Amino acid sequence: MTDYPSTSTRLRNQLAFVMEMDKLKAVERRSLVSDQSRQENSAEHSWHLAMMVICLAETVPGPIDVARALELALTHDIVEIDAGDTFVYDAEACEDQAEREQRAAGRIFGLLPEDQRAGMWERWRELEAGQTQEAKLVRVLDRLQPLLLHEATGGVVWQRHGVRKSQVLQRAREIEEHAPLLWPLVCGIIDGAVASGRLRDE
Amino acid sequence: MTDYPSTSTRLRNQLAFVMEMDKLKAVERRSLVSDQSRQENSAEHSWHLAMMVICLAETVPGPIDVARALELALTHDIVEIDAGDTFVYDAEACEDQAEREQRAAGRIFGLLPEDQRAGMWERWRELEAGQTQEAKLVRVLDRLQPLLLHEATGGVVWQRHGVRKSQVLQRAREIEEHAPLLWPLVCGIIDGAVASGRLRDE
Repeated sequence: MTDYPSTSTRLRNQLAFVMEMDKLKAVERRSLVSDQSRQENSAEHSWHLAMMVICLAETVPGPIDVARALELALTHDIVEIDAGDTFVYDAEACEDQAEREQRAAGRIFGLLPEDQRAGMWERWRELEAGQTQEAKLVRVLDRLQPLLLHEATGGVVWQRHGVRKSQVLQRAREIEEHAPLLWPLVCGIIDGAVASGRLRDE
Repeated sequence: MTDYPSTSTRLRNQLAFVMEMDKLKAVERRSLVSDQSRQENSAEHSWHLAMMVICLAETVPGPIDVARALELALTHDIVEIDAGDTFVYDAEACEDQAEREQRAAGRIFGLLPEDQRAGMWERWRELEAGQTQEAKLVRVLDRLQPLLLHEATGGVVWQRHGVRKSQVLQRAREIEEHAPLLWPLVCGIIDGAVASGRLRDE
């Protein structure tokens, strides 16, 4: 880690955090990018999600604090720098996910000055709890984004991992609850994948 | 392009834009990610920049509208989907950059419903003009981010392209002007690169 001797402790800590963030570009998700050339990484996924907040905020009815929703989207995966991406349909990996991510948050948020560290914990807890309008929106879009990529890439990832329709529906439940406008779209994607044999229905 | 027949025209246009955004993950920049394994792409760069807005907003003195600054950071490079990334030290490529990007903006922003299209043009013009606090902040951090990556990767990209100190200083001018707190850091990075022979000084 470069030390930047000419700067204050506060700025040095902020820069250490900023450079730590660079590592999220190396965390691979299961989703493929739409040209199927490679797996998506968690940094570009987080950017894509934030762009969806800008374009699709209206899909969750009610007033939205855009700054807050963008902050939640941008920071929602940074614990994966230590904890890795957990495939939502891998029951075993999901078992100790909370514990791994809690430990990661402690180390990574801890790089920041105290006031900013507290801000990161608040965002993380808000998103986990999923009670505010902004958390609902980001959780909905975080579930929609891989569905759109699966649709664009012919459902090859679902097929490869033997994912079942019931698992996808379970994961998409929050979309139905908080963004009813999106639900016909989601059903269309899932039904299409079942009809073409890319998603198991039993 | 998937058509999503079960959705409204407005939502279909928004989804077309969202899926178009996926292509920014394939636009390569000159900077290397910090483990030097590959070049950074413009989507993950935009995420990194937005994270810097969250952590380093205070480096540009004065009140900042965080939502606006995040929107500027997130959308600042999407014209590169058509226009490609222009290496700032490539004088020839910079010549027709404005024209290429203007054309790209027309096509890409044009995918959105009219109200959101107008919003994209407003953000783009605001950042290009660089007059608001939020535009100043994003322009400063967009100049700082590659400097931090160059420092972390041993200046190999500067060396490879024969970049000169005067070019880097010229590009960094807005940092000195709008974020004086960051200037000693920038000078330290540049002087270190010259001292180690990675940046030409003539």
